[in-house]
Amino acid sequence: MNRTSSIGSLFNHLCAQIGAANVTIDESQIELRSRTCIPYRELPQIIVYPLNAQHVQAVVLAAQEFNVPVWPVSTGKNWGYGETTACYPGGITMILNRMTKIWHVDEKLGYAVIDPGVTYQQLNDYLKANKIPLWTDVTSSTQSGSVIGNALDKGRGLSPYADHFGQICGMDVVLSDGKILETGNVSQGNYHSRHLYKWGIGPSLQGLFAQSNFGIVVKAGVWLMPEPEGFDWAVFDYTAKEEQFGDFIDDLRKLMFQGALRAYPHVANDFAMLCNVSQYPHERLAGQKFLSPAALESWRKEHGVAPWSFSCGLYGLKKEVRIQKYYLRRVLSQYGQIQFLGAAAQNTLYGKTVHFFAKGMGKMLGKSPALMASLIPAINLYRGVPTDYFVKQIYAKAFASKPAEKIVDAAKDQCGVLWLGPLIPFTCEHVTKAIAISKDITAKHEFDFFLEIIVESPRNVIFLLGVFYDRKADEECSRAKRWYTEVKTALSQNGYPTYRMATMSMPDSSDTASTQKDFLNAIKQSIDPQNIIAPGRYGISANKKG
Amino acid sequence: MNRTSSIGSLFNHLCAQIGAANVTIDESQIELRSRTCIPYRELPQIIVYPLNAQHVQAVVLAAQEFNVPVWPVSTGKNWGYGETTACYPGGITMILNRMTKIWHVDEKLGYAVIDPGVTYQQLNDYLKANKIPLWTDVTSSTQSGSVIGNALDKGRGLSPYADHFGQICGMDVVLSDGKILETGNVSQGNYHSRHLYKWGIGPSLQGLFAQSNFGIVVKAGVWLMPEPEGFDWAVFDYTAKEEQFGDFIDDLRKLMFQGALRAYPHVANDFAMLCNVSQYPHERLAGQKFLSPAALESWRKEHGVAPWSFSCGLYGLKKEVRIQKYYLRRVLSQYGQIQFLGAAAQNTLYGKTVHFFAKGMGKMLGKSPALMASLIPAINLYRGVPTDYFVKQIYAKAFASKPAEKIVDAAKDQCGVLWLGPLIPFTCEHVTKAIAISKDITAKHEFDFFLEIIVESPRNVIFLLGVFYDRKADEECSRAKRWYTEVKTALSQNGYPTYRMATMSMPDSSDTASTQKDFLNAIKQSIDPQNIIAPGRYGISANKKG
Repeated sequence: MNRTSSIGSLFNHLCAQIGAANVTIDESQIELRSRTCIPYRELPQIIVYPLNAQHVQAVVLAAQEFNVPVWPVSTGKNWGYGETTACYPGGITMILNRMTKIWHVDEKLGYAVIDPGVTYQQLNDYLKANKIPLWTDVTSSTQSGSVIGNALDKGRGLSPYADHFGQICGMDVVLSDGKILETGNVSQGNYHSRHLYKWGIGPSLQGLFAQSNFGIVVKAGVWLMPEPEGFDWAVFDYTAKEEQFGDFIDDLRKLMFQGALRAYPHVANDFAMLCNVSQYPHERLAGQKFLSPAALESWRKEHGVAPWSFSCGLYGLKKEVRIQKYYLRRVLSQYGQIQFLGAAAQNTLYGKTVHFFAKGMGKMLGKSPALMASLIPAINLYRGVPTDYFVKQIYAKAFASKPAEKIVDAAKDQCGVLWLGPLIPFTCEHVTKAIAISKDITAKHEFDFFLEIIVESPRNVIFLLGVFYDRKADEECSRAKRWYTEVKTALSQNGYPTYRMATMSMPDSSDTASTQKDFLNAIKQSIDPQNIIAPGRYGISANKKG
Repeated sequence: MNRTSSIGSLFNHLCAQIGAANVTIDESQIELRSRTCIPYRELPQIIVYPLNAQHVQAVVLAAQEFNVPVWPVSTGKNWGYGETTACYPGGITMILNRMTKIWHVDEKLGYAVIDPGVTYQQLNDYLKANKIPLWTDVTSSTQSGSVIGNALDKGRGLSPYADHFGQICGMDVVLSDGKILETGNVSQGNYHSRHLYKWGIGPSLQGLFAQSNFGIVVKAGVWLMPEPEGFDWAVFDYTAKEEQFGDFIDDLRKLMFQGALRAYPHVANDFAMLCNVSQYPHERLAGQKFLSPAALESWRKEHGVAPWSFSCGLYGLKKEVRIQKYYLRRVLSQYGQIQFLGAAAQNTLYGKTVHFFAKGMGKMLGKSPALMASLIPAINLYRGVPTDYFVKQIYAKAFASKPAEKIVDAAKDQCGVLWLGPLIPFTCEHVTKAIAISKDITAKHEFDFFLEIIVESPRNVIFLLGVFYDRKADEECSRAKRWYTEVKTALSQNGYPTYRMATMSMPDSSDTASTQKDFLNAIKQSIDPQNIIAPGRYGISANKKG
C-alpha cells in the first residue's frame, strides 16, 4: 500500500473510530506536540489521543489495516529520554494523556487501578481530596508525568516504593491484534488477587511490557504506601576529603543493608544541586563552554552547597525513625553534616518553629535564600507530593530564568536536556571508576559534569548523568549527541550499561547481544507479525519505518 | 520418526554426548527415580543427569534431533506438587541434581551465583564453612530442595527474603535451539550489575522462565540476606474466640503494612501443627476417615497446641527488633499468647538459660515434650538453617512413625501428599470465606483439614491446603485427586486461583483464559517450534506427547 496517498483515508477512518477531536493531521499541531528535549526528533503523520481502551484497540486495528506503525506514549513527559518522538519518521503517534480514569483505590490493601494518562499530580490530588491515607511515590521530575508510563520505563522515585516498575501489579495490555491481555494468566474478573500478587500463575508476563513494544498498557494496578506512623527527612552535606568518598559509598551501602536507610537517596554533586536553586553563572565561564573547578567552587560557595549532598526520607514506626536517625547520624557525621528537618513541612506551631530554626541554621551555614526556599517542596516530595520545582533545573543553562509557572512544559519550551543512566554495582571501586570515566568524557565534550547517584537497592546504584544545552543551537545539539554516544559506549564497554535509553539510540541498541536480540525478535514476530507497535523500540524489530 | 524403535539410538547418542554414567534407560531405576507423592505419575523412557550447561545443551539438541520431549526438573523434591513426573508418558526426564557448582558468593553485595542442583543444605553449608555472614532464606520443606528450582516454582520462605522468585537476579537459560540466553539483555560478561539489578535493559525476561517451559535455567544469581544486627523469634498461640479470627487477620495485615512484621508468618491450624510433633491418632477415628472436632480437640490438648498458631522471625537493628516486639505484643496479646524465644538457639549461657526457661514455661502451658523439641530447629529455620524436621509431617498419617533419618526422601518412600495454594486477598472477609469453602469440601472428601495461611505480602496471603494419604492405596489416591479437583475448582470459581499447580492438573489448566493461552502458545511456538521442552507444563502447548 502506498502510505502517503493513504494517509487521508487513514485519518478519516480514525476520525470515524475515535472521534475527530481525538485525531490530528495538522502539521503545525503535530510540530508543537512532537517537540523534544533530546537532540533528535521525528515527525509522525498523525497523532491520536484515545479516550479509553476501546479507542486504543480501534487504532491498533486501523494501523494493521493500513499497515502503519503506532508509537504509543503515556503522557510523553519523559524529558531528556525521548518525549513523544518515535525512532523513525511518519506513522501514528498515540498519546494516552486523555485516558485519566482512576478506576479504584483500595485503602485497606494499598493500591490504585488507573489509566496510563493519570499523572502523579492527579493521583495525589485524588488521594488528598478523598482523605485516603495512602502516599504515591513520585519522581523528582514533573508532576505531569504518567504514573504508569514512568513505571514502564523503569523510572525511580524516592520513598520505600521507589522501584516504580516493582510497584505495578496486574496490567491490561492491548496486543497488536486488538485483543486485551490481562497479566496474571487468569480469566477476566475471576481473580481477586490480580492487583495484589505480582507473579501470577505460570510465566509472569509483566516484565515483557517494560521498555518494550509487545503491547500497549491501558490500565494497571499500582501499589501505594500507607502513610507511615513515623516520618522524617534528612539532609546531608558531604564535607570530607575527596579521597574518603569511596568509604562514604561503602558505608551508605551498609546502612541500606542494615535497614537504617529504608528509602533511596540520590547523592547529587554540586552542579546538579546548584541548577536546582540558581541560574547558570555564564559570567563565570571566562570564554570556556563549561565552568572551571575554581568557577564551580565559587558558585557553590555562594549558595552554601556542598561538593556532594543528598536528602532522604525516613519511614517506619515512630520509634524506628528515631533509631534510624541515631544510626544515620553516627555513621554519616564522619563525612559531613546531617540534619533532620522533616517537621519543617508540618503546618503546626512545632513545624513552623523547626522551619524557622532551619532557616536560621541555614543562614549560619552559608546557605543561600534560594537553597532554603527549596526545603518545603523537597520534604513534601518524600511524602508523595509531586512538584515541578526541581525539574526546572533543566532550564538553568540555556534560559535566562526558570519559568514562573507552577507547572512547566519543557518539550514545548524547547528546553534541551539529555539523560543517561548507567547501572553501577554499589561499591567504592565501581562507583569511583565510573565517575572517573564519565567525568573525563563530559569535560572532553565541554559540558559541566552533572551527576546524581541514585541508590537503586543495597546492591546497585544508577548514575543519572545529564547535559543541559541549547535545543535550538545545532552545535549544542550535535555536541550533546556526541557526548551521549561516547559516554554511553565507554561505560558499556566497562560493564556499566544504561538502564534506560534515549529514543535516538534505540534502533541500533548495541548493548543487546545477539541471542537476546534473536529471542526478543522471535517473540515480537509471533505476537506482532506485521510489526505495528513501536518498531525499533529498545532495538526490537527495528526494520520497519513509517 | 518411530519413537519406540529409536529410543535405543537416542540412548546411545546421549551416552556419547554426556557420558553413560549420566543416562539411564533401566526400567527399575526409572521406576525408582520417578516415584511421586502426588496421586499421579508418568514414566519417562530415559532419565538424564547433566553435569553442566554443555550437557543440558547437548541433551536439548539430541531431543530436537530425535523429536522427543524433555521434562527438566532441578532436584525434583517439590513433594506434593509433582516431583520428577512429566504431564505425559515417555520422553526424556532431565534431573539437574548433579549440577551443584557454587560459582561465586559476593559477601559485600549479598548474592550467590549457583547451579540449579545446589540445595538449601549445600548453600547453607558453604556459607557456614566459609564463615560468610549471609543467610539463605529456606523453605520449611526439605533441605534437599533446589534453591533455584523452588524459586522458579515461586516457592516461599520465611525471612524478609521469603519471595524466592523475587530474589533471583540474572539467569542463564538454555533455549530449545541449544543457545544460552542471559537475562538482562546485555552481552556476555559485559554487565557488572547482572546479578544486582532485577529488570535488565528492555523487556524483563526473567518472569518468562518461572512456572514455564520456555527454557531450562542452568545458572542464576540469588540474593542473600546479610546477617542482621538484631534477630529474635516470636511464637504465637491464638486462644481468642473463633469469631475474632477475622479481626486478628486484619490486625496482622496492619502489622505488616506498618513494618512491625518484616518477615512472613505462616499461620497454621491445629492439624497442621500437630502433624509436626505427633503421629496421626488413628485410635481416635472411631470408624471415620478423619477426626471429629472433639477428637481433634483432645489430640490438640494432649500436645498443648492452640487452634491457630504461628512463629515468625524478627529482623533489623537490635533496637528495632525491641520495638517490633513491643508492637507485636501490644497488638497480638488481644488474641492469645506471644513469646519471644530467639535467644534459645544461641549456644551461650544466656541462650541455654532462655531455652531452660522456655521449656519450663512450655510445661506449665501444657506443651508436650515433642512440641518443645521442635523449638531449636524452628528458630534455626528462620536464621537460614534448613532442616527436614518439619517436612516429616507428611509421614504423620500413612506411616507408623516418622523416618529416623535426618534427611528423608518422601517420593522414594511413597509418602502421599498433595498441596494446593490458592491466592487470597489479605482481609478478614476473603480469608474467612476461603476457609469456609475449603473446609467444607475437605470434610466432604473425608480428609482432615490442613491449613497454613502463608502471609505473602501485606496485601495477599496464600493458603497452603493439603492432604496426607496412603500413596499405595488406590481408594486414597483417587479420593485425594477428587478433593484436589473440587477444592481447586470451587476456589477458582470464587476468585481464588492457585498460585502453583500439581503436575497432573497442568495440561488442562482451566484457569488460563483464552487470550493469555493464545499469547503463551504463540511465544512457545516462536521459541520452541518443535515443542521440545516440557510440553504442557502450566498448560502451555499441551499438544505433544512423549
